Amino acid sequence: MTAQAESIIRTIMASEAYGKAYATLAAEHDRTVEDIVALTQIAAPSFQEETRARTFLAMAEAHGLKQLEIDAEGNVTGLRPGIGNGPLVCVAAHLDTVFPAGTDLTVRREGTRLCAPGVGDDTRSLAVLLAWLRAMDAAGVQTRADLLFVADVGEEGPGDLRGMRHLFQKGPYKDRISAFITVDSPDMEHIATGGVGSKRYRVTFNRPGGHSYGAFGLVNPMFAMADAVTRLGRVSVPANPRTTYSASVTGGGTSINSIPNSVWTDFDLRSESPAELARLEATFLDLLAQSVAAENAARSTRNGAVATEIVKTGDRPAGHTDETGDLAQLAHAAIDAHGFHPSFETSSTDANIPMSLGIPAIKIGSGGSGGRAHSLEEWIDVTPEPSIRGMAAGLATVLAVAGLV
Amino acid sequence: MTAQAESIIRTIMASEAYGKAYATLAAEHDRTVEDIVALTQIAAPSFQEETRARTFLAMAEAHGLKQLEIDAEGNVTGLRPGIGNGPLVCVAAHLDTVFPAGTDLTVRREGTRLCAPGVGDDTRSLAVLLAWLRAMDAAGVQTRADLLFVADVGEEGPGDLRGMRHLFQKGPYKDRISAFITVDSPDMEHIATGGVGSKRYRVTFNRPGGHSYGAFGLVNPMFAMADAVTRLGRVSVPANPRTTYSASVTGGGTSINSIPNSVWTDFDLRSESPAELARLEATFLDLLAQSVAAENAARSTRNGAVATEIVKTGDRPAGHTDETGDLAQLAHAAIDAHGFHPSFETSSTDANIPMSLGIPAIKIGSGGSGGRAHSLEEWIDVTPEPSIRGMAAGLATVLAVAGLV
Repeated sequence: MTAQAESIIRTIMASEAYGKAYATLAAEHDRTVEDIVALTQIAAPSFQEETRARTFLAMAEAHGLKQLEIDAEGNVTGLRPGIGNGPLVCVAAHLDTVFPAGTDLTVRREGTRLCAPGVGDDTRSLAVLLAWLRAMDAAGVQTRADLLFVADVGEEGPGDLRGMRHLFQKGPYKDRISAFITVDSPDMEHIATGGVGSKRYRVTFNRPGGHSYGAFGLVNPMFAMADAVTRLGRVSVPANPRTTYSASVTGGGTSINSIPNSVWTDFDLRSESPAELARLEATFLDLLAQSVAAENAARSTRNGAVATEIVKTGDRPAGHTDETGDLAQLAHAAIDAHGFHPSFETSSTDANIPMSLGIPAIKIGSGGSGGRAHSLEEWIDVTPEPSIRGMAAGLATVLAVAGLV
Repeated sequence: MTAQAESIIRTIMASEAYGKAYATLAAEHDRTVEDIVALTQIAAPSFQEETRARTFLAMAEAHGLKQLEIDAEGNVTGLRPGIGNGPLVCVAAHLDTVFPAGTDLTVRREGTRLCAPGVGDDTRSLAVLLAWLRAMDAAGVQTRADLLFVADVGEEGPGDLRGMRHLFQKGPYKDRISAFITVDSPDMEHIATGGVGSKRYRVTFNRPGGHSYGAFGLVNPMFAMADAVTRLGRVSVPANPRTTYSASVTGGGTSINSIPNSVWTDFDLRSESPAELARLEATFLDLLAQSVAAENAARSTRNGAVATEIVKTGDRPAGHTDETGDLAQLAHAAIDAHGFHPSFETSSTDANIPMSLGIPAIKIGSGGSGGRAHSLEEWIDVTPEPSIRGMAAGLATVLAVAGLV
């Protein structure tokens, strides 16, 4: 931590405005929990964020944000103006979850624990943005920078960061954002300064199909696909730089008594390192070819051979924010000053896009604790003290970056 | 063909009763075509055969069948008594089709061709049973055996032969049927004497899921499933007795960036031989366990281990009818004497159930020609001469087996 960053944070935390803001976060904590519950229970699969976006917009309306609107891509954006002529600092949380329409999103409370799909990733952060707005309003906070609040679409897998791509590359705030903070998931112990790159593929294995009994002995696309998945499962990847893969979603087939005409799997490949990601991608494409060749050799191709249709469905750029720069240092100092011990990490979030464009960007946590993200057993804990302290740490970061007047 | 069978058929075909019956089939052919059209246009997906069953029962009412009724499973059954103290010969056709509710069943006529889903498999055969009843009544046919006419439910895939299971294992005719003839689809060139057995499974691979990047290293149900499919693809099965397998339909997964919670595959195992089918099934169940164990050994189970949920979705017994026995020989001689050149085959039909119980059972054709069964382009041809000749061949078979008095 630089002494300058520590000093800025100390000054902020000693200010009357910060004190009032903290008291408001504490006093309104129950309301924040209610907001988490209400927003969690609105389904928001990637590409179907609209209902949740409208609700968030309505909840944000009390705070006098300028140009509060849903942009052409579906992001909710609203500006809290600074004192004038300052830079533009963007604070974001994502609307979408990984859970398909129809998932039971009822929030189950077990003491201070809230259990529901998406509750921590990233719905809690949406409620935290609202809590920050309430706290800033109550404390009469003024900042040098304009603060752009964004509840964005398309952070999760299939969304492929479409909300961020629009914000930084097409929308009205394009070329105006000088720093970016995304609030994503409860974890306060990590600040993401590295953006994990990912390559995503839908691979469809086709041809020729036939009756499961009458045509037995013909190549079966399902065997080729299974072989590819099995080969992928045996690939060795480095723990550092962290590199991962998953066979995630699958489907296809005609009927129980048919050799399938077509089956597909979605694959997710990631790495902190562009070089390792490129190596894993090459290995993956190579094993697809091997699996198809093996199936075409194992069974008859007299009615046609198995072939693949390989579609790249996601391509998230890797990126990096200088850990010694102001943004990372202020976040580190603010979070540390609130009793956490954050380390810098690499992850795949909305921050990848600004990072890849050279704009300082970080991901911070929403406070409290949580776990099992992306599973039906996802949970967060909303015990007031650590939750409020976490939110205050994030708010101090925002105030420091935007410049508390 | 045995000389005895040929002699019996020659005698029948020379009889006055057969001559009158043949003339009636010819004179009433237009009505038979109308019956085909009317019945085809009544939807009858497996498990939803009731409306068609009631209509068939109403159409059969003119023929003085005894105990004409819909049994507890949904089969229409009616008895045409023989002269007394004879055996019970069952003649069946199935009510159900593979087409889901809502399929357009309008019969399109193109000259002598009727096009509609289910028209040949097996609706034409239902009309042929009615045509036989009319012909026997008109000719005053008396048989030694009682003839049980059955329009049965659940022959197609998901029905899993439930109509036949009830008839042979539970209903009032249980233990009384000494020979069984099912009329299924127009093809006169094959007589099924072998029943392919099948075992069908939906196997779901569950738990524990998680983030594809954050939770990398946890067991992935998709890898276990792929490994099971791959292992199945390497299983060696005999060409004779013909034994087959397929991984047919698959699905599951949460999102591209999640280790799936749950994925499933439908498997189809078949054999002409009960022993080979049992061996294949045991191998299959064993490899499922191996694949799950391998995945749980290959990656971390700290958040739970992969487990399978194995549901048997189909279980058709294999069986065989002696081709040198009376039933097969009489059918062969009768069909051959009408200008066809039938060969014996193995298939999967209602006859599987009696075959598996050691009761002589065959499948014969309903006459005429047809094609594209199980597709929306299904068709039959009702050109009178070959259609009537085909029906007469089937009727001669029935009269020979039941004993024309």
